[in-house]
Amino acid sequence: MEDDAAGLSAIVLGAAAGGGFPQWNCGCRLCRLARAGDPRVRPATQASVALSGNGAEWVIVGASPDLRQQILRTPQLWPGAGLRHSPIVAVVLLGADIDAIAGLLTLRERQPFTVYAAPPILTNLRDNPIFGVLDPAIVTLRPFAAGQTLACGAGLELTLLEMPGKLPLYRETPGATIAEPGEGYAARLSAYGRSTLIAPACAQVSLPVRRWLEDVDLVFFDGTLFTDDEMIVAGLGHKTGRRMGHLPISGAGGTLEALSGLAARRILLHINNSNPILLAGSPERRLVEAAGFEIAYDGMEVRA
Amino acid sequence: MEDDAAGLSAIVLGAAAGGGFPQWNCGCRLCRLARAGDPRVRPATQASVALSGNGAEWVIVGASPDLRQQILRTPQLWPGAGLRHSPIVAVVLLGADIDAIAGLLTLRERQPFTVYAAPPILTNLRDNPIFGVLDPAIVTLRPFAAGQTLACGAGLELTLLEMPGKLPLYRETPGATIAEPGEGYAARLSAYGRSTLIAPACAQVSLPVRRWLEDVDLVFFDGTLFTDDEMIVAGLGHKTGRRMGHLPISGAGGTLEALSGLAARRILLHINNSNPILLAGSPERRLVEAAGFEIAYDGMEVRA
Repeated sequence: MEDDAAGLSAIVLGAAAGGGFPQWNCGCRLCRLARAGDPRVRPATQASVALSGNGAEWVIVGASPDLRQQILRTPQLWPGAGLRHSPIVAVVLLGADIDAIAGLLTLRERQPFTVYAAPPILTNLRDNPIFGVLDPAIVTLRPFAAGQTLACGAGLELTLLEMPGKLPLYRETPGATIAEPGEGYAARLSAYGRSTLIAPACAQVSLPVRRWLEDVDLVFFDGTLFTDDEMIVAGLGHKTGRRMGHLPISGAGGTLEALSGLAARRILLHINNSNPILLAGSPERRLVEAAGFEIAYDGMEVRA
Repeated sequence: MEDDAAGLSAIVLGAAAGGGFPQWNCGCRLCRLARAGDPRVRPATQASVALSGNGAEWVIVGASPDLRQQILRTPQLWPGAGLRHSPIVAVVLLGADIDAIAGLLTLRERQPFTVYAAPPILTNLRDNPIFGVLDPAIVTLRPFAAGQTLACGAGLELTLLEMPGKLPLYRETPGATIAEPGEGYAARLSAYGRSTLIAPACAQVSLPVRRWLEDVDLVFFDGTLFTDDEMIVAGLGHKTGRRMGHLPISGAGGTLEALSGLAARRILLHINNSNPILLAGSPERRLVEAAGFEIAYDGMEVRA
């Protein structure tokens, strides 16, 4: 960029999957290393990215339960002049799981902004009176269908894209064994002809997904699990990654393979505490880096 | 205590009122000092206290939205042996405002514990399907009427007490001008004949409240506002403290007066970002300290 003010800026507010890293009740090796302050691992809050096209206002993609903490440590998101102010002009929701929406509860205190989300996500909010704490006279919930494009503030254009995925955990059918028809989305944001795709949950790189990936300069992509059966092998769960709506990084049809050959800068986001790429120097992390991928961390700043 | 393991231990996980200190969108003098790292103010997360009667297990009173962060920085609350574990055996809810319940969303991940709360508070949870993320097969929601006493785990006996207060903000009637019939409670916890009362919200020290205060060794009491019109004078709101369910610290009938002459150690908790007692050396803080009160801070450890 010749002009520092022009361009697309992104700040990773949180790099981790639901529960964060370390997770409150997890005694796995990586969580124990994180609690012990081992320098090979970097604690991470739950996934969220702040974006700006004008350097002054910001759009938050993903309302993580850690949002208060994330704002406090990010000076770009602090209030400007006046008794009450925020440079956050909009929040984009990509799913309705706790780690994707609970941060809205932090954004109370009579501050105007707009929430952009597909209708099924907003229905989830409306089904929970607790979100009424965002007074509709002050905070606008703006239903926004996948495929449309609009100016969402902060000098950015926003498009929502439907992603192969799953229902929020608290609305799953007990007997479901495969990924259900999704309510998960990716966001494409652009400014000054530069663009990014933010996809923290993707169960499959279908042909349309691949085309969207080929069309942007910067990709934040689902880095939840390294292997599809990672949670099962670690004794931490009984579901595969794909069943949870997350393509694994490795293996046939995994992210390294499916995102190979892209021109875009590729950054893995939404990393689960079980994922060995969280450990500096691990073979898995080296493999990912050798394939040309970066691994998001809290506070990472990126320009596109 | 002659035996370190016997007695009642309390850890202040968060000392601040709703929104925390600093509050995400607040540009008041104190919040600006906190963001600037001024040594006279100490940032604080939203109110919660951890208690133990056996030093090994813990009961959390108040499920603050900052609970994940609070657990991570409190080694007493870290998992013990095994892949999944937590020393947190119970959560006591005293109100249904966001800052008192949203932390339950952090305690997902299939960890068994019991939630104790009066029926109106549990009704608030049940009205919000998002709390279904706490699988009822794993997490027990235990309705518990005010005035009853039971063993709630961690070597503690629990009694809930009705407090003069108000409805949760998101359920208020638009035209209400006085404190409405409350859904707010205090918790009395005891072990080994020692006891504490935790009352983060109290609109009035009625005769029964005064009797409960006289009956314990340690009091954590509503320290939200210093003066009743503090929010109005600061231009931060249009409600008095009493209207918001909080007795002011100063003035006629205020906390300093109403809690005078108690034998108990008295600690102010749930302190709003507008409250000048947050500033070291302020006349208001000196007044409070001279009256024999302490001011809670994040990480404060107390034995009764």
